[in-house]
Amino acid sequence: MGQTPVAIVGASGYTGAELIRLLLQHPHVELVGLYARKSAGEPIRRVFPHLAQSKLIVEAFDADAVAARAKVVFCALPHGDSAVVVRQLHERGLTVLDLSADFRLRDPAEYARWYGHGDSGSPHPEPALLEQAVYGLPERHRERLRGARLVACPGCYPTSTILPLAPLLAAGLVRPDGIVVDAKSGVSGAGKSPSQGTHFAEIAEGIRPYKIAGTHRHTPEMEQELALAAGLPARDLHIIFTPNLVPMTRGILACVYATPTDATRPASAYRDALVAAYADEPFITVVDPDQLPDTAHVRGSNRAHVGAWFDARSGRVLGLGVIDNLVKGASGQAIQCMNLALGLPETAGLMGAPMFP
Amino acid sequence: MGQTPVAIVGASGYTGAELIRLLLQHPHVELVGLYARKSAGEPIRRVFPHLAQSKLIVEAFDADAVAARAKVVFCALPHGDSAVVVRQLHERGLTVLDLSADFRLRDPAEYARWYGHGDSGSPHPEPALLEQAVYGLPERHRERLRGARLVACPGCYPTSTILPLAPLLAAGLVRPDGIVVDAKSGVSGAGKSPSQGTHFAEIAEGIRPYKIAGTHRHTPEMEQELALAAGLPARDLHIIFTPNLVPMTRGILACVYATPTDATRPASAYRDALVAAYADEPFITVVDPDQLPDTAHVRGSNRAHVGAWFDARSGRVLGLGVIDNLVKGASGQAIQCMNLALGLPETAGLMGAPMFP
Amino acid sequence: MGQTPVAIVGASGYTGAELIRLLLQHPHVELVGLYARKSAGEPIRRVFPHLAQSKLIVEAFDADAVAARAKVVFCALPHGDSAVVVRQLHERGLTVLDLSADFRLRDPAEYARWYGHGDSGSPHPEPALLEQAVYGLPERHRERLRGARLVACPGCYPTSTILPLAPLLAAGLVRPDGIVVDAKSGVSGAGKSPSQGTHFAEIAEGIRPYKIAGTHRHTPEMEQELALAAGLPARDLHIIFTPNLVPMTRGILACVYATPTDATRPASAYRDALVAAYADEPFITVVDPDQLPDTAHVRGSNRAHVGAWFDARSGRVLGLGVIDNLVKGASGQAIQCMNLALGLPETAGLMGAPMFP
Amino acid sequence: MGQTPVAIVGASGYTGAELIRLLLQHPHVELVGLYARKSAGEPIRRVFPHLAQSKLIVEAFDADAVAARAKVVFCALPHGDSAVVVRQLHERGLTVLDLSADFRLRDPAEYARWYGHGDSGSPHPEPALLEQAVYGLPERHRERLRGARLVACPGCYPTSTILPLAPLLAAGLVRPDGIVVDAKSGVSGAGKSPSQGTHFAEIAEGIRPYKIAGTHRHTPEMEQELALAAGLPARDLHIIFTPNLVPMTRGILACVYATPTDATRPASAYRDALVAAYADEPFITVVDPDQLPDTAHVRGSNRAHVGAWFDARSGRVLGLGVIDNLVKGASGQAIQCMNLALGLPETAGLMGAPMFP
Repeated sequence: MGQTPVAIVGASGYTGAELIRLLLQHPHVELVGLYARKSAGEPIRRVFPHLAQSKLIVEAFDADAVAARAKVVFCALPHGDSAVVVRQLHERGLTVLDLSADFRLRDPAEYARWYGHGDSGSPHPEPALLEQAVYGLPERHRERLRGARLVACPGCYPTSTILPLAPLLAAGLVRPDGIVVDAKSGVSGAGKSPSQGTHFAEIAEGIRPYKIAGTHRHTPEMEQELALAAGLPARDLHIIFTPNLVPMTRGILACVYATPTDATRPASAYRDALVAAYADEPFITVVDPDQLPDTAHVRGSNRAHVGAWFDARSGRVLGLGVIDNLVKGASGQAIQCMNLALGLPETAGLMGAPMFP
Repeated sequence: MGQTPVAIVGASGYTGAELIRLLLQHPHVELVGLYARKSAGEPIRRVFPHLAQSKLIVEAFDADAVAARAKVVFCALPHGDSAVVVRQLHERGLTVLDLSADFRLRDPAEYARWYGHGDSGSPHPEPALLEQAVYGLPERHRERLRGARLVACPGCYPTSTILPLAPLLAAGLVRPDGIVVDAKSGVSGAGKSPSQGTHFAEIAEGIRPYKIAGTHRHTPEMEQELALAAGLPARDLHIIFTPNLVPMTRGILACVYATPTDATRPASAYRDALVAAYADEPFITVVDPDQLPDTAHVRGSNRAHVGAWFDARSGRVLGLGVIDNLVKGASGQAIQCMNLALGLPETAGLMGAPMFP
Repeated sequence: MGQTPVAIVGASGYTGAELIRLLLQHPHVELVGLYARKSAGEPIRRVFPHLAQSKLIVEAFDADAVAARAKVVFCALPHGDSAVVVRQLHERGLTVLDLSADFRLRDPAEYARWYGHGDSGSPHPEPALLEQAVYGLPERHRERLRGARLVACPGCYPTSTILPLAPLLAAGLVRPDGIVVDAKSGVSGAGKSPSQGTHFAEIAEGIRPYKIAGTHRHTPEMEQELALAAGLPARDLHIIFTPNLVPMTRGILACVYATPTDATRPASAYRDALVAAYADEPFITVVDPDQLPDTAHVRGSNRAHVGAWFDARSGRVLGLGVIDNLVKGASGQAIQCMNLALGLPETAGLMGAPMFP
Repeated sequence: MGQTPVAIVGASGYTGAELIRLLLQHPHVELVGLYARKSAGEPIRRVFPHLAQSKLIVEAFDADAVAARAKVVFCALPHGDSAVVVRQLHERGLTVLDLSADFRLRDPAEYARWYGHGDSGSPHPEPALLEQAVYGLPERHRERLRGARLVACPGCYPTSTILPLAPLLAAGLVRPDGIVVDAKSGVSGAGKSPSQGTHFAEIAEGIRPYKIAGTHRHTPEMEQELALAAGLPARDLHIIFTPNLVPMTRGILACVYATPTDATRPASAYRDALVAAYADEPFITVVDPDQLPDTAHVRGSNRAHVGAWFDARSGRVLGLGVIDNLVKGASGQAIQCMNLALGLPETAGLMGAPMFP
């Protein structure tokens, strides 16, 4: 098996850096190009001193130049900016893994509502491509990802939420209405650009919710995939989602609350459903009933720890999921999708154990 | 107004230290005695170097000696140990502020179930005193606290949860069933004794739930007070409660989710109810609709920030409350109760602004 | 004693916020005006939600308006911007506490070199005022601060360094050459404006030096005061100073290394000199020989913990000092100086104990 | 090349966990046994949930059983306990990488003084083996490590200190007297057992020195290796060493201060000496003159970033070194030594890039 040449567009952000870290270890690909507007001309070791061992130089993006060199491209650009670049690369025949939100929502009207500008929302920039995009959560869409040419890599909150919840909905164990998602994220999810909301002195030693009550853009993405699992139209499932910002750099913990369809069912049924769903999954661990997921247990890795418990007092089900938002929630999952798209072993380059403590 | 002599039993823990910090600034009391088993004989400045300015020496507890010197005592002992000491002090005529859980639950059978040892639970050690104890949440029980001789100071999770939720239940705006409480706490809530679960290297840079699905002892305490607000018997209201451990020292954020009794009511009704309930409260701020509570905004102070929002997508209500778990969640609230019990100005010694950043 | 009306210019930064927090508790002053360019017109409770209890509104600065209302002004502006404002207030007869660097260096040529722009440095903007300014470290210049009308409040690194070191130099116990200062600071010292160097994800879980090898502007300030203590001209004492950025919000630890003038002197002599120097100081604790200073022991307070040890192996002396950079290193010390300038009790409003944990 | 069977004794601590993480990725070895007293019988995935992908079970140590299975053993036991185990394995013909301090000091009298119990110190438990042990810092002792059968892996502070300093001493650029080492470490260096000094609430948001003034046991180890570099007897070089505990989990920053042998030499000479010394080193980066080492840039990797600067004001040299204390400061370096001892490629299993942010 030769090495496939891959490039990264948007290499100067955190998901770009994480792609580089992981791809440098990948046995079947060669990193042949790094592109970023602001850092063009700089050695990547100056942009990211932790990548001191790499000789790569950041370049300004040019679709033809990328196509001449690479067969696969990771796009780690902001939403809105990404769609056009993706189209340029796609029409030049490259396999594209898009880490932005541009191709995640199946319904262009939903995209316009959540990501468009202005009151009614501007329309989706590349609606024609939308149908070709596969939602890049291998545990839910593995078969469609094999050979895919355009992958819309999921958001970090959706990944951590869907993993513990979708199997319960798919098995008809919990009701699709009344779902509560309370998720807690590290600060790296906000990216590399400094802002008041990521300023150390304001974030350390405190926790706070943000974008509450139906205002976070990952809400429709979760609803779309949960509805799909439940066999419902996307607009027939609505959750309440609260993201919280935790004084740590990496990791997401999603706590999901749902109502059983049958409150007299054995308490073990919910965990059993996760065990059945993930028995053959290389990156998912269903924790023992007496263990609890901890973001520290997956840090730096492509792994997810999930679990589900029935609370007899309240008659509710609690699902828990933890991931590293930059790996299974972004760059690692994108590489997992690439492996599937290219027909490589799905775990190639991704079996590094988490870093603890 | 002369200075009332006060003592602290259990002075060598974190709530003890916080009582000392606050009482040293209190204009109407004099700190006359510190008691703790392990540190007896040591100057408090050796036990807690941050209290370098105090000349007090820790002593071994003796009820008669305390009674000879103090009129008011704060008991900051572990549950189980506290009840007997409280009884000894109470029968000697002192006013007792108990920070343990021993007198919080009105029903001794509930105490036995949650705090007793063995299968059926050992009985409450001082059931006769239980009826005299007033639950020390001034915003809910102010009149009964005036002149009280035994105050059961609330737990930190209950304080942060009841403050945003009780007014909504009391006003009949949300249903008492199906309530979800997802709370996030700093590590100081676990106290001063080191353990694997408070070991820096295991806690920093991660978040995790613990004591999930009806196993945390603050659950029945919350249910008791929320049922009271809703006008229900304590055992007719059940919540699902998830505590999460956050990599920070102080602070609790409670996110509470409830179902409106009328989904067509104006969205502003929930915040309005909080504004009405807390209009005259000296320590409670109902945040503006476009602001969000942050534990960093109350750190070191006896203040709580609360809010409530209606999520039209899901038809749910989100309530938020933040406190400093060691102040409004413990020592500060105990002093607020003391002020009421002694007829002092309620805010005496407690108006220090939060420390930010 | 009536309440003196005081104002703060530059109220929207961290030292401004800390001045407000402390002055709201001060028994002898009334906070009558807050000034800041960017936040003019906003209630301070919107700028700093932790100050929810204050009704004050931020205003645009106008020297006449300030003079009409206040007798004392704290200037918490960036260096360069401050000097002109200070002059305007000074010539209107107000007592000014300047927290910027503009009046700290006695020699205007040194100011030009370190703070001026361009190669040769632009000259000091208000050299005439320089002679009237008193360096606001009460432990070194108390008598000159009494009645002072312009106080140049010290930098945070100089405060933490001078306190353990100056008495050793003044007593002739250590040599003025070969001094090494390795100091460690929390991130709040960089102020409220976000930057890459204060971005949570880049700062948490790491430590790094910055502005090394004679490039940090606090270097000449330390040399000036240490030389003064040693009885030398300012330019005859040179230190090597390394500031390090620690993943915490508040606090500075200075580790200073010096060579004894007599290596055969008893090891206790160095601590004894600190004890003698600080015997009557209300805010300085010389730690016991078996204790070690910890920034956590002074957090939120105007206190400093210092110590000195002789290392027999290497024949060197180690001095240690810890402060809260925003309190004893800035706003608290400024209030201490104000108390002296106005003839108030020196400790008024500043006796709050540190917040631990 | 077949896979060499390796075992870990002391697998339940942090350096044990880190060895497992790294060895699971190593292409030329197979992890065949994990030994630990307390966790014997438990699956490693229960001891360390982040190792969920491993099927290995912890066993009680038995030298014969280990020898029957493994050819190489890593000993990650406390000093004192380690020496006997090392001897048992060594006499059974295994290659031993000892991560304890037991074989680091060449002089058994020094060991007795620093690690022995009682006034005069108990003698070294296995003095006969001491001569065979090679100090496991490949950048200083590479040739002796090839084929070595007993490697004394260096302490974390010595590694971070020797790397920037030894080449300057070896080249005669700085004087061996008057060296100051001020180092800053994350908390994981204290190991996995909880204590007051590693309790989250006491460590977060503060920095403090510990074991100052010639009391930290890494002092003689540094002196031994620095003296060797300077061509002096071990007892003729004395440093003053201050370790500081930083609120982070991983990483060490060493700031070293030294006096040039010739103050008129070009300022670039010191960095040049590091560049020359480390030109061919696979794990050492000499940072650009305008960059500064940051522990965040080496986290999780076997890399070290070093640099040296001349401070013209004070006439001193500043050397800086950063490592991940658990990798280049412990487990990674032990694997690097194993690679040399076995004749494997020195970088095998160790080229994973640092994890940033």
